[in-house]
Amino acid sequence: MLLVEYDGRNYCGFQWQAGVPTIQDELEKAILKVTGEASRVVAASRTDSGVHAKGQMVSFRTRSKLAPSTFVRALNFYLPRDIAVRGACRVGMEFDVRRHAVSREYEYKILNRPTRSPLWEGFAYFVPMKLDIEAMNQACRLLEGEHDFASFGAAIGKLRSTVRIVYEARVERKGDVVSLYMRANSFLPHQVRNTVGLLVRVGMGKAGLDEFRQVMEARKLGLAGPTAPAHGLYLVKVDYSCILEMEN
Amino acid sequence: MLLVEYDGRNYCGFQWQAGVPTIQDELEKAILKVTGEASRVVAASRTDSGVHAKGQMVSFRTRSKLAPSTFVRALNFYLPRDIAVRGACRVGMEFDVRRHAVSREYEYKILNRPTRSPLWEGFAYFVPMKLDIEAMNQACRLLEGEHDFASFGAAIGKLRSTVRIVYEARVERKGDVVSLYMRANSFLPHQVRNTVGLLVRVGMGKAGLDEFRQVMEARKLGLAGPTAPAHGLYLVKVDYSCILEMEN
Repeated sequence: MLLVEYDGRNYCGFQWQAGVPTIQDELEKAILKVTGEASRVVAASRTDSGVHAKGQMVSFRTRSKLAPSTFVRALNFYLPRDIAVRGACRVGMEFDVRRHAVSREYEYKILNRPTRSPLWEGFAYFVPMKLDIEAMNQACRLLEGEHDFASFGAAIGKLRSTVRIVYEARVERKGDVVSLYMRANSFLPHQVRNTVGLLVRVGMGKAGLDEFRQVMEARKLGLAGPTAPAHGLYLVKVDYSCILEMEN
Repeated sequence: MLLVEYDGRNYCGFQWQAGVPTIQDELEKAILKVTGEASRVVAASRTDSGVHAKGQMVSFRTRSKLAPSTFVRALNFYLPRDIAVRGACRVGMEFDVRRHAVSREYEYKILNRPTRSPLWEGFAYFVPMKLDIEAMNQACRLLEGEHDFASFGAAIGKLRSTVRIVYEARVERKGDVVSLYMRANSFLPHQVRNTVGLLVRVGMGKAGLDEFRQVMEARKLGLAGPTAPAHGLYLVKVDYSCILEMEN
Protein backbone atom coordinates (compact mmCIF):
# COMPACT_ATOMS: atom_id res chain seq x y z
CA MET A 1 0.00 0.00 0.00
CA LEU A 2 1.22 3.48 -0.90
CA LEU A 3 0.52 6.98 0.44
CA VAL A 4 0.53 9.20 -2.67
CA GLU A 5 0.61 12.97 -3.28
CA TYR A 6 -0.07 14.57 -6.65
CA ASP A 7 -0.65 17.84 -8.46
CA GLY A 8 -3.70 16.89 -10.54
CA ARG A 9 -3.46 19.71 -13.11
CA ASN A 10 -1.97 17.60 -15.87
CA TYR A 11 -4.11 14.48 -15.37
CA CYS A 12 -7.58 13.37 -16.40
CA GLY A 13 -8.21 12.11 -12.88
CA PHE A 14 -6.98 9.05 -11.03
CA GLN A 15 -8.60 6.25 -12.97
CA TRP A 16 -7.12 4.75 -16.12
CA GLN A 17 -8.71 5.86 -19.41
CA ALA A 18 -7.45 5.00 -22.88
CA GLY A 19 -5.25 7.65 -24.49
CA VAL A 20 -5.19 10.25 -21.73
CA PRO A 21 -2.77 10.83 -18.83
CA THR A 22 -4.02 9.49 -15.49
CA ILE A 23 -2.45 9.04 -12.05
CA GLN A 24 -3.22 5.30 -12.14
CA ASP A 25 -1.36 4.89 -15.42
CA GLU A 26 1.74 6.72 -14.14
CA LEU A 27 1.78 4.64 -10.93
CA GLU A 28 1.42 1.38 -12.86
CA LYS A 29 4.24 2.36 -15.25
CA ALA A 30 6.55 3.18 -12.31
CA ILE A 31 5.68 -0.09 -10.52
CA LEU A 32 6.41 -2.02 -13.74
CA LYS A 33 9.86 -0.37 -13.93
CA VAL A 34 10.65 -1.17 -10.28
CA THR A 35 9.26 -4.72 -10.03
CA GLY A 36 9.05 -5.93 -13.63
CA GLU A 37 5.43 -6.83 -12.90
CA ALA A 38 2.31 -5.46 -14.61
CA SER A 39 0.24 -4.57 -11.53
CA ARG A 40 -3.18 -3.05 -11.25
CA VAL A 41 -3.36 -0.14 -8.83
CA VAL A 42 -6.55 0.52 -6.81
CA ALA A 43 -7.22 3.87 -5.06
CA ALA A 44 -9.20 4.55 -1.89
CA SER A 45 -10.89 7.54 -3.56
CA ARG A 46 -11.02 8.05 -7.32
CA THR A 47 -10.25 11.73 -7.80
CA ASP A 48 -11.62 13.63 -10.82
CA SER A 49 -9.69 15.40 -13.55
CA GLY A 50 -7.66 18.30 -12.09
CA VAL A 51 -8.19 17.28 -8.43
CA HIS A 52 -5.08 17.17 -6.23
CA ALA A 53 -4.12 14.76 -3.45
CA LYS A 54 -1.96 15.16 -0.37
CA GLY A 55 -2.84 11.74 1.00
CA GLN A 56 -4.32 9.33 -1.55
CA MET A 57 -4.04 5.65 -0.58
CA VAL A 58 -3.44 3.03 -3.26
CA SER A 59 -2.78 -0.69 -3.17
CA PHE A 60 -1.36 -3.21 -5.63
CA ARG A 61 -0.18 -6.83 -5.57
CA THR A 62 3.47 -7.67 -5.96
CA ARG A 63 5.83 -10.60 -5.56
CA SER A 64 8.70 -8.17 -4.96
CA LYS A 65 10.64 -8.57 -1.70
CA LEU A 66 11.85 -4.95 -1.68
CA ALA A 67 11.54 -3.12 1.66
CA PRO A 68 8.74 -0.50 1.76
CA SER A 69 11.27 2.36 2.10
CA THR A 70 13.14 1.08 -0.96
CA PHE A 71 9.85 1.02 -2.87
CA VAL A 72 9.29 4.69 -1.94
CA ARG A 73 12.68 5.76 -3.27
CA ALA A 74 12.54 3.62 -6.40
CA LEU A 75 9.01 4.70 -7.36
CA ASN A 76 9.84 8.39 -6.77
CA PHE A 77 12.82 8.01 -9.08
CA TYR A 78 10.58 6.86 -11.96
CA LEU A 79 7.43 8.89 -11.25
CA PRO A 80 6.99 12.29 -12.94
CA ARG A 81 7.62 15.40 -10.79
CA ASP A 82 3.91 15.97 -10.22
CA ILE A 83 3.34 12.58 -8.55
CA ALA A 84 5.21 11.21 -5.50
CA VAL A 85 4.96 8.39 -3.00
CA ARG A 86 5.18 9.63 0.59
CA GLY A 87 5.15 6.27 2.36
CA ALA A 88 4.58 2.54 1.90
CA CYS A 89 3.68 -0.50 3.96
CA ARG A 90 2.86 -4.15 3.38
CA VAL A 91 -0.72 -5.26 3.87
CA GLY A 92 -2.31 -8.72 3.67
CA MET A 93 -4.02 -10.02 0.53
CA GLU A 94 -7.40 -9.62 2.27
CA PHE A 95 -6.87 -5.86 2.68
CA ASP A 96 -9.21 -3.75 0.51
CA VAL A 97 -7.94 -0.17 0.19
CA ARG A 98 -11.40 1.00 -0.85
CA ARG A 99 -13.84 -0.98 1.29
CA HIS A 100 -11.73 -0.99 4.45
CA ALA A 101 -11.36 2.81 4.48
CA VAL A 102 -13.50 4.19 7.33
CA SER A 103 -13.31 7.85 6.35
CA ARG A 104 -12.01 10.24 3.71
CA GLU A 105 -11.05 13.87 4.32
CA TYR A 106 -11.12 16.49 1.59
CA GLU A 107 -10.04 20.13 1.65
CA TYR A 108 -11.36 22.72 -0.80
CA LYS A 109 -9.36 25.93 -1.14
CA ILE A 110 -10.98 29.23 -2.20
CA LEU A 111 -8.84 32.29 -2.92
CA ASN A 112 -11.01 35.08 -1.54
CA ARG A 113 -9.58 38.51 -2.32
CA PRO A 114 -10.30 41.21 -4.91
CA THR A 115 -7.60 40.22 -7.42
CA ARG A 116 -6.52 36.86 -8.88
CA SER A 117 -3.31 35.23 -7.63
CA PRO A 118 -0.55 33.82 -9.89
CA LEU A 119 0.82 31.80 -6.95
CA TRP A 120 -2.56 30.08 -6.35
CA GLU A 121 -3.32 29.58 -10.05
CA GLY A 122 -4.51 25.99 -10.52
CA PHE A 123 -4.51 25.39 -6.75
CA ALA A 124 -7.51 27.38 -5.46
CA TYR A 125 -10.89 28.58 -6.75
CA PHE A 126 -10.87 32.37 -7.16
CA VAL A 127 -13.91 34.10 -5.59
CA PRO A 128 -13.40 37.89 -5.49
CA MET A 129 -16.51 38.75 -3.43
CA LYS A 130 -15.84 38.71 0.34
CA LEU A 131 -17.28 35.54 1.90
CA ASP A 132 -19.14 35.44 5.22
CA ILE A 133 -17.36 32.57 7.02
CA GLU A 134 -19.81 32.62 9.94
CA ALA A 135 -22.80 32.02 7.63
CA MET A 136 -20.92 29.27 5.77
CA ASN A 137 -20.14 27.52 9.06
CA GLN A 138 -23.80 27.66 10.08
CA ALA A 139 -24.65 25.81 6.85
CA CYS A 140 -21.83 23.34 7.58
CA ARG A 141 -23.57 22.40 10.84
CA LEU A 142 -26.56 21.20 8.76
CA LEU A 143 -24.28 18.87 6.79
CA GLU A 144 -22.86 17.03 9.78
CA GLY A 145 -24.40 13.67 10.67
CA GLU A 146 -26.04 10.91 8.65
CA HIS A 147 -28.15 12.34 5.83
CA ASP A 148 -29.35 11.57 2.34
CA PHE A 149 -26.98 13.78 0.30
CA ALA A 150 -28.62 13.07 -3.08
CA SER A 151 -28.91 16.83 -3.86
CA PHE A 152 -25.13 17.16 -3.58
CA GLY A 153 -24.31 14.19 -5.82
CA ALA A 154 -23.88 13.90 -9.55
CA ALA A 155 -25.48 11.15 -11.60
CA ILE A 156 -22.18 9.41 -12.38
CA GLY A 157 -22.10 5.61 -12.30
CA LYS A 158 -24.47 3.50 -10.22
CA LEU A 159 -25.18 4.58 -6.67
CA ARG A 160 -26.71 2.00 -4.33
CA SER A 161 -27.42 4.64 -1.71
CA THR A 162 -27.03 8.41 -1.44
CA VAL A 163 -26.90 8.32 2.37
CA ARG A 164 -23.53 9.30 3.81
CA ILE A 165 -22.20 10.16 7.27
CA VAL A 166 -20.42 13.53 7.41
CA TYR A 167 -18.23 13.52 10.52
CA GLU A 168 -16.98 17.06 10.10
CA ALA A 169 -17.61 20.04 7.84
CA ARG A 170 -16.06 23.41 8.65
CA VAL A 171 -14.82 26.52 6.93
CA GLU A 172 -11.70 28.41 8.01
CA ARG A 173 -10.10 31.61 6.76
CA LYS A 174 -6.30 31.98 6.77
CA GLY A 175 -5.47 35.35 5.23
CA ASP A 176 -6.85 35.37 1.69
CA VAL A 177 -7.54 31.64 1.60
CA VAL A 178 -10.85 30.18 2.76
CA SER A 179 -10.77 26.39 3.17
CA LEU A 180 -13.62 23.93 3.55
CA TYR A 181 -12.58 20.78 5.42
CA MET A 182 -14.96 17.87 5.03
CA ARG A 183 -14.64 14.37 6.45
CA ALA A 184 -17.16 11.61 5.76
CA ASN A 185 -17.37 7.82 5.61
CA SER A 186 -17.42 8.26 1.85
CA PHE A 187 -18.56 10.87 -0.68
CA LEU A 188 -20.94 10.90 -3.64
CA PRO A 189 -19.46 11.92 -7.01
CA HIS A 190 -18.90 15.74 -7.00
CA GLN A 191 -20.25 15.99 -3.44
CA VAL A 192 -17.53 18.30 -2.09
CA ARG A 193 -17.53 20.52 -5.20
CA ASN A 194 -21.34 20.85 -5.18
CA THR A 195 -21.25 21.59 -1.45
CA VAL A 196 -18.69 24.34 -2.11
CA GLY A 197 -20.87 25.77 -4.89
CA LEU A 198 -23.83 26.12 -2.55
CA LEU A 199 -21.70 27.25 0.43
CA VAL A 200 -20.17 30.04 -1.67
CA ARG A 201 -23.70 31.24 -2.50
CA VAL A 202 -24.39 31.28 1.25
CA GLY A 203 -21.12 33.11 1.90
CA MET A 204 -22.06 35.76 -0.68
CA GLY A 205 -25.50 36.21 0.86
CA LYS A 206 -27.18 34.83 -2.28
CA ALA A 207 -28.68 31.84 -0.44
CA GLY A 208 -29.86 31.63 3.18
CA LEU A 209 -29.85 28.76 5.63
CA ASP A 210 -33.48 28.00 4.76
CA GLU A 211 -32.63 27.55 1.08
CA PHE A 212 -29.64 25.40 2.06
CA ARG A 213 -31.94 23.20 4.17
CA GLN A 214 -34.53 22.98 1.38
CA VAL A 215 -31.93 21.92 -1.18
CA MET A 216 -30.69 19.26 1.23
CA GLU A 217 -34.17 17.97 1.97
CA ALA A 218 -35.22 17.84 -1.70
CA ARG A 219 -32.89 14.83 -2.24
CA LYS A 220 -32.69 15.50 -5.94
CA LEU A 221 -29.43 14.58 -7.72
CA GLY A 222 -27.47 17.65 -8.79
CA LEU A 223 -29.77 20.23 -7.19
CA ALA A 224 -26.97 21.77 -5.09
CA GLY A 225 -24.26 23.70 -6.84
CA PRO A 226 -22.99 25.17 -9.06
CA THR A 227 -20.19 22.56 -9.12
CA ALA A 228 -17.04 24.39 -7.97
CA PRO A 229 -13.96 23.87 -10.19
CA ALA A 230 -11.83 20.76 -9.65
CA HIS A 231 -8.54 22.62 -9.11
CA GLY A 232 -9.52 23.82 -5.59
CA LEU A 233 -10.03 20.26 -4.33
CA TYR A 234 -7.49 18.15 -2.40
CA LEU A 235 -7.89 14.60 -1.09
CA VAL A 236 -6.15 15.07 2.26
CA LYS A 237 -6.42 11.80 4.16
CA VAL A 238 -7.93 8.33 4.12
CA ASP A 239 -8.38 6.58 7.46
CA TYR A 240 -8.50 2.87 8.22
CA SER A 241 -9.63 1.09 11.37
CA CYS A 242 -6.29 -0.71 11.57
CA ILE A 243 -2.99 1.03 12.28
CA LEU A 244 -0.82 1.25 9.15
CA GLU A 245 2.85 1.80 9.83
CA MET A 246 3.99 3.67 6.74
CA GLU A 247 7.74 3.78 6.05
CA ASN A 248 9.55 6.31 3.92
CA MET B 1 2.82 52.51 -8.84
CA LEU B 2 1.73 48.86 -8.86
CA LEU B 3 1.79 46.05 -6.28
CA VAL B 4 2.61 42.94 -8.31
CA GLU B 5 2.50 39.19 -7.61
CA TYR B 6 4.11 36.57 -9.86
CA ASP B 7 5.03 32.94 -10.21
CA GLY B 8 8.62 33.28 -11.45
CA ARG B 9 9.02 29.76 -12.87
CA ASN B 10 8.56 30.74 -16.50
CA TYR B 11 10.61 33.95 -16.43
CA CYS B 12 14.29 34.86 -16.66
CA GLY B 13 13.88 37.24 -13.75
CA PHE B 14 12.32 40.68 -13.51
CA GLN B 15 14.61 42.74 -15.68
CA TRP B 16 14.23 43.02 -19.43
CA GLN B 17 16.70 40.97 -21.51
CA ALA B 18 16.60 40.54 -25.27
CA GLY B 19 14.84 37.41 -26.52
CA VAL B 20 13.82 35.86 -23.18
CA PRO B 21 10.61 36.16 -21.16
CA THR B 22 10.84 38.61 -18.25
CA ILE B 23 8.33 40.09 -15.81
CA GLN B 24 9.28 43.63 -16.92
CA ASP B 25 8.54 42.82 -20.54
CA GLU B 26 5.10 41.37 -19.74
CA LEU B 27 4.20 44.39 -17.58
CA GLU B 28 5.32 46.83 -20.28
CA LYS B 29 3.32 44.97 -22.95
CA ALA B 30 0.18 45.04 -20.77
CA ILE B 31 0.63 48.78 -20.02
CA LEU B 32 1.02 49.47 -23.74
CA LYS B 33 -2.28 47.67 -24.41
CA VAL B 34 -4.11 49.59 -21.67
CA THR B 35 -2.67 53.09 -22.22
CA GLY B 36 -1.29 53.03 -25.76
CA GLU B 37 1.97 54.32 -24.29
CA ALA B 38 5.38 52.62 -24.41
CA SER B 39 6.36 52.94 -20.73
CA ARG B 40 9.44 51.78 -18.94
CA VAL B 41 8.71 49.88 -15.74
CA VAL B 42 11.07 50.08 -12.75
CA ALA B 43 11.00 47.56 -9.86
CA ALA B 44 11.88 48.08 -6.19
CA SER B 45 13.83 44.82 -6.16
CA ARG B 46 15.09 43.07 -9.31
CA THR B 47 14.28 39.41 -8.74
CA ASP B 48 16.41 36.68 -10.36
CA SER B 49 15.31 34.01 -12.80
CA GLY B 50 12.77 31.66 -11.15
CA VAL B 51 12.23 33.86 -8.07
CA HIS B 52 8.59 34.54 -7.10
CA ALA B 53 6.96 37.69 -5.73
CA LYS B 54 3.95 38.22 -3.51
CA GLY B 55 4.56 41.95 -3.16
CA GLN B 56 6.86 43.44 -5.79
CA MET B 57 6.52 47.22 -6.24
CA VAL B 58 6.90 48.76 -9.69
CA SER B 59 6.45 52.24 -11.07
CA PHE B 60 5.99 53.72 -14.53
CA ARG B 61 5.05 57.07 -16.05
CA THR B 62 1.75 57.53 -17.80
CA ARG B 63 -0.46 60.30 -19.16
CA SER B 64 -3.51 58.07 -18.69
CA LYS B 65 -6.32 59.42 -16.50
CA LEU B 66 -7.67 55.93 -15.64
CA ALA B 67 -8.50 55.37 -11.95
CA PRO B 68 -6.02 53.08 -10.13
CA SER B 69 -8.68 50.38 -9.63
CA THR B 70 -9.46 50.46 -13.37
CA PHE B 71 -5.73 50.05 -14.09
CA VAL B 72 -5.68 46.95 -11.85
CA ARG B 73 -8.57 45.30 -13.71
CA ALA B 74 -7.37 46.29 -17.18
CA LEU B 75 -3.78 45.13 -16.59
CA ASN B 76 -4.94 41.82 -15.08
CA PHE B 77 -7.04 41.25 -18.18
CA TYR B 78 -3.96 41.49 -20.45
CA LEU B 79 -1.30 39.98 -18.16
CA PRO B 80 -0.55 36.23 -18.41
CA ARG B 81 -2.00 34.00 -15.65
CA ASP B 82 1.34 33.86 -13.81
CA ILE B 83 1.57 37.63 -13.28
CA ALA B 84 -1.08 39.82 -11.58
CA VAL B 85 -1.46 43.35 -10.24
CA ARG B 86 -2.84 43.37 -6.69
CA GLY B 87 -3.14 47.12 -6.23
CA ALA B 88 -2.27 50.50 -7.71
CA CYS B 89 -1.88 54.10 -6.62
CA ARG B 90 -0.73 57.37 -8.12
CA VAL B 91 2.60 58.79 -6.95
CA GLY B 92 4.35 62.07 -7.80
CA MET B 93 7.03 62.32 -10.51
CA GLU B 94 9.67 62.71 -7.79
CA PHE B 95 8.83 59.29 -6.33
CA ASP B 96 11.61 56.70 -6.83
CA VAL B 97 10.31 53.15 -6.31
CA ARG B 98 13.85 51.89 -5.78
CA ARG B 99 15.61 54.59 -3.80
CA HIS B 100 12.64 55.56 -1.64
CA ALA B 101 12.08 51.98 -0.42
CA VAL B 102 13.18 51.75 3.22
CA SER B 103 13.08 47.95 3.51
CA ARG B 104 12.53 44.75 1.56
CA GLU B 105 11.22 41.51 3.01
CA TYR B 106 11.98 38.11 1.49
CA GLU B 107 10.74 34.68 2.43
CA TYR B 108 12.60 31.49 1.52
CA LYS B 109 10.62 28.24 1.69
CA ILE B 110 12.30 24.88 2.34
CA LEU B 111 10.33 21.64 2.07
CA ASN B 112 11.82 19.60 4.91
CA ARG B 113 10.51 16.03 4.92
CA PRO B 114 11.86 12.67 3.74
CA THR B 115 10.10 12.62 0.34
CA ARG B 116 9.71 15.22 -2.42
CA SER B 117 6.36 17.00 -2.83
CA PRO B 118 4.51 17.42 -6.16
CA LEU B 119 2.41 20.23 -4.65
CA TRP B 120 5.52 22.22 -3.65
CA GLU B 121 7.42 21.48 -6.88
CA GLY B 122 8.90 24.78 -8.14
CA PHE B 123 7.76 26.61 -4.98
CA ALA B 124 10.11 25.32 -2.26
CA TYR B 125 13.66 23.95 -1.95
CA PHE B 126 13.56 20.24 -1.06
CA VAL B 127 15.87 19.31 1.85
CA PRO B 128 15.15 15.75 3.07
CA MET B 129 17.41 15.80 6.13
CA LYS B 130 15.64 17.06 9.26
CA LEU B 131 16.68 20.65 10.04
CA ASP B 132 17.45 21.96 13.53
CA ILE B 133 15.36 25.16 13.63
CA GLU B 134 16.79 26.24 17.00
CA ALA B 135 20.39 26.18 15.65
CA MET B 136 19.32 28.03 12.50
CA ASN B 137 17.66 30.74 14.59
CA GLN B 138 20.82 31.16 16.67
CA ALA B 139 22.71 31.84 13.45
CA CYS B 140 19.96 34.27 12.39
CA ARG B 141 20.66 36.33 15.52
CA LEU B 142 24.21 36.92 14.18
CA LEU B 143 22.79 38.35 10.96
CA GLU B 144 20.62 40.99 12.57
CA GLY B 145 21.98 44.52 12.72
CA GLU B 146 24.32 46.54 10.50
CA HIS B 147 27.11 44.37 9.09
CA ASP B 148 29.36 43.98 6.10
CA PHE B 149 27.61 41.09 4.28
CA ALA B 150 30.24 40.70 1.53
CA SER B 151 30.54 36.93 2.18
CA PHE B 152 26.84 36.51 1.40
CA GLY B 153 26.93 38.51 -1.83
CA ALA B 154 27.66 37.50 -5.41
CA ALA B 155 29.97 39.49 -7.66
CA ILE B 156 27.17 40.69 -9.96
CA GLY B 157 27.28 44.28 -11.19
CA LYS B 158 29.00 47.09 -9.32
CA LEU B 159 28.54 47.32 -5.55
CA ARG B 160 29.39 50.60 -3.87
CA SER B 161 29.14 49.03 -0.43
CA THR B 162 28.48 45.56 0.96
CA VAL B 163 27.20 46.92 4.27
CA ARG B 164 23.50 46.29 4.86
CA ILE B 165 21.13 46.58 7.83
CA VAL B 166 19.22 43.37 8.53
CA TYR B 167 16.18 44.31 10.63
CA GLU B 168 14.92 40.77 11.05
CA ALA B 169 16.05 37.22 10.24
CA ARG B 170 14.14 34.27 11.62
CA VAL B 171 13.32 30.69 10.75
CA GLU B 172 9.92 29.11 11.38
CA ARG B 173 8.59 25.59 10.85
CA LYS B 174 4.97 25.04 9.83
CA GLY B 175 4.47 21.31 9.34
CA ASP B 176 6.86 20.19 6.61
CA VAL B 177 7.75 23.71 5.46
CA VAL B 178 10.62 25.64 7.04
CA SER B 179 10.63 29.33 6.11
CA LEU B 180 13.35 31.93 6.49
CA TYR B 181 11.97 35.46 6.80
CA MET B 182 14.51 38.19 6.20
CA ARG B 183 13.97 41.95 6.18
CA ALA B 184 16.73 44.45 5.42
CA ASN B 185 17.17 47.97 4.08
CA SER B 186 18.36 46.29 0.89
CA PHE B 187 20.06 43.06 -0.15
CA LEU B 188 23.24 42.15 -2.04
CA PRO B 189 22.81 39.99 -5.15
CA HIS B 190 22.05 36.37 -4.04
CA GLN B 191 22.22 37.40 -0.36
CA VAL B 192 19.11 35.54 0.78
CA ARG B 193 19.93 32.41 -1.24
CA ASN B 194 23.53 32.31 0.04
CA THR B 195 22.26 32.86 3.59
CA VAL B 196 19.87 29.91 3.14
CA GLY B 197 22.72 27.74 1.81
CA LEU B 198 24.81 28.37 4.93
CA LEU B 199 21.80 28.19 7.31
CA VAL B 200 20.83 24.78 5.90
CA ARG B 201 24.37 23.55 6.62
CA VAL B 202 23.89 24.83 10.21
CA GLY B 203 20.46 23.13 10.40
CA MET B 204 22.02 19.82 9.27
CA GLY B 205 24.78 20.11 11.87
CA LYS B 206 27.43 20.43 9.11
CA ALA B 207 28.43 23.94 10.21
CA GLY B 208 28.46 25.42 13.72
CA LEU B 209 27.87 28.94 14.93
CA ASP B 210 31.63 29.54 15.02
CA GLU B 211 31.97 28.69 11.34
CA PHE B 212 28.95 30.89 10.55
CA ARG B 213 30.60 33.79 12.41
CA GLN B 214 33.96 33.20 10.65
CA VAL B 215 32.32 33.21 7.22
CA MET B 216 30.54 36.46 8.09
CA GLU B 217 33.71 38.10 9.39
CA ALA B 218 35.83 37.05 6.38
CA ARG B 219 33.93 39.57 4.18
CA LYS B 220 34.84 37.68 1.04
CA LEU B 221 32.34 37.77 -1.86
CA GLY B 222 30.62 34.42 -2.38
CA LEU B 223 32.19 32.67 0.63
CA ALA B 224 28.80 31.77 2.16
CA GLY B 225 26.67 29.21 0.41
CA PRO B 226 26.04 27.04 -1.48
CA THR B 227 23.54 29.32 -3.25
CA ALA B 228 20.11 27.80 -2.58
CA PRO B 229 17.88 27.40 -5.67
CA ALA B 230 15.86 30.39 -6.88
CA HIS B 231 12.47 28.64 -6.77
CA GLY B 232 12.25 28.74 -2.94
CA LEU B 233 12.56 32.54 -2.86
CA TYR B 234 9.67 35.03 -2.62
CA LEU B 235 9.83 38.84 -2.52
CA VAL B 236 7.13 39.42 0.09
CA LYS B 237 6.99 43.14 0.77
CA VAL B 238 8.63 46.48 0.04
CA ASP B 239 8.13 49.26 2.57
CA TYR B 240 8.22 53.02 2.04
CA SER B 241 8.42 55.80 4.59
CA CYS B 242 5.27 57.39 3.14
CA ILE B 243 1.84 55.82 3.32
CA LEU B 244 0.73 54.44 -0.03
CA GLU B 245 -2.99 53.92 -0.37
CA MET B 246 -3.24 51.10 -2.85
CA GLU B 247 -6.60 50.55 -4.56
CA ASN B 248 -7.81 47.38 -6.19
